[in-house]
Amino acid sequence: MAVYTEVSDAALTAFLQAYEIGTLLSYKGIAEGVENTNFFLHTTAGFYILTLYEKRVRADDLPFFLNLMEHLADRGLACPQPIRNRGGQALGQLCGRPAVIVSFLEGVSVKQPNADHCRALGRALAGLHAAGCDFGMVRENNLSVQAWRPLFRSAEAQADGVAPGLAERIRADLAVLEAGWPSGLPGGVIHADLFTDNVFFIGEALSGLIDFYFACTDAFAYDIAICLNAWCFDPDGTYHRDMGAALIAGYEAVRPLEPAEVAALPILARGAALRFMLTRLVDWLNVPPGALVQPKDPLEYDRRLTFHRSAGHARDYGWEG
Amino acid sequence: MAVYTEVSDAALTAFLQAYEIGTLLSYKGIAEGVENTNFFLHTTAGFYILTLYEKRVRADDLPFFLNLMEHLADRGLACPQPIRNRGGQALGQLCGRPAVIVSFLEGVSVKQPNADHCRALGRALAGLHAAGCDFGMVRENNLSVQAWRPLFRSAEAQADGVAPGLAERIRADLAVLEAGWPSGLPGGVIHADLFTDNVFFIGEALSGLIDFYFACTDAFAYDIAICLNAWCFDPDGTYHRDMGAALIAGYEAVRPLEPAEVAALPILARGAALRFMLTRLVDWLNVPPGALVQPKDPLEYDRRLTFHRSAGHARDYGWEG
Repeated sequence: MAVYTEVSDAALTAFLQAYEIGTLLSYKGIAEGVENTNFFLHTTAGFYILTLYEKRVRADDLPFFLNLMEHLADRGLACPQPIRNRGGQALGQLCGRPAVIVSFLEGVSVKQPNADHCRALGRALAGLHAAGCDFGMVRENNLSVQAWRPLFRSAEAQADGVAPGLAERIRADLAVLEAGWPSGLPGGVIHADLFTDNVFFIGEALSGLIDFYFACTDAFAYDIAICLNAWCFDPDGTYHRDMGAALIAGYEAVRPLEPAEVAALPILARGAALRFMLTRLVDWLNVPPGALVQPKDPLEYDRRLTFHRSAGHARDYGWEG
Repeated sequence: MAVYTEVSDAALTAFLQAYEIGTLLSYKGIAEGVENTNFFLHTTAGFYILTLYEKRVRADDLPFFLNLMEHLADRGLACPQPIRNRGGQALGQLCGRPAVIVSFLEGVSVKQPNADHCRALGRALAGLHAAGCDFGMVRENNLSVQAWRPLFRSAEAQADGVAPGLAERIRADLAVLEAGWPSGLPGGVIHADLFTDNVFFIGEALSGLIDFYFACTDAFAYDIAICLNAWCFDPDGTYHRDMGAALIAGYEAVRPLEPAEVAALPILARGAALRFMLTRLVDWLNVPPGALVQPKDPLEYDRRLTFHRSAGHARDYGWEG
């Protein structure tokens, strides 16, 4: 929630001269975005988002993210479309940072989604997976099962200070997940971070998906598992089976799940919860002095894991096939 | 530079039902505004700014500010226009805060203004003074000369820790200013905070004035003095006489200064510098823990005061009458 890099009118005006999007009318720093600096940008040609990538984003990954957004937008998915400059480049440089202009997407994030929102999300997620099928680039999921033990090690000594018994619970989950993590599931491009912040609605209709900076190549069903975690729980850990059912049904209306995906759903959901718990835990224990961003509570996912440990079948999540 | 109050989609949608500005398309928290929380707001009817007033704004003063903006906009001044709800009220309540929707103003703040910008500013300032002439409300300037000694007292003990000899310099300035502060100058509504952040340009043309939350009833020439301080100095304290000349000439093209105003200009400029030095000094010495906003450097104004102490006549500021 911050503007990390100030951009002067003169610097921005000079930057825009490389683009064919008219002249500057206004721009405002947006108080969102944990990783990057974003500006709402209005020119005589229209509305845009200008993003400056701060240190946490690996510059090597930017071509994957930008090409992916362009690919998906070309196939009709409602997502930000990178604007190429006169030199044909989407990636520029502004105030010493890699910088990109993307099309502005209307819509509002829903704080408390209902089953209708979840159904629309499921449809959009399947649409994203389908649109990404012929995307030519690959990016390994560097926050999947192989990353969790190293993350845990960096937080292990302090974990019980966050919640009693937390280290032991994580240890047990890790053993189960590493032993049983599925491979060979249908896969391709996944969003991998489709929280409510990253899905826009206008009224009841889903209007777009944003923030592709965790997108990678992995099992499609793992993306569903992430969404079930992100959308279908109360903060107290209560699972809303009706919302999960709507999400999965929405997805299957576009792409029916294969039996192996249905079978894997519980372990994928448990793994997704552990993934977010671990990255939140590490962030929680490593708040830099003077941080502008409040870290998210890892224990929300500790509570979700209680549900996942007791779930044995996709039906427990609402699958009704 | 912060969003102090989070506003959910549901809360905002409910709030908007009291207005006749269509339905919500998008909103983004703006990373500007030291005092308040601002959102960029797009509805089916257009673009707006939604402001939630945080604790530092006295709720009693809001009717003055809002009625003034409405008055000025009615007279054709390019400034944010408060939108009245179906009940005829400009001031509403959202998330426990006084809240207002105003029209969105295009334009960009110029970080490094030149003489042309200053000339345009002078014209706009005189236009503001003229447009405010028949405004019926009065608000005392509670940051004028009578406020400076109490401000200084609260910072006096720590002042020399900020810069050697600072307390003594302030003491001497205060004595001169309190003894010679002019009264009876032509006056009315002044903006009182017309820094570069609060003036928008599109290309070379001034497109609007914003942020009327220090507006009050005081001498017009004091507003000029504030602008000379805010626009015509380098951070190192160098005064740009050509920029001051353009600012004053721009102003006088709309409203020529009276002899008493010309005579008072040096002391008004010195007083304006002390006013911003003192409030910055107090903020500098009282940064709350976990503050999201970096305080501004009071010593910028200490350096400007060096110039003001040596200036004896309006000609030193560029007046060429």
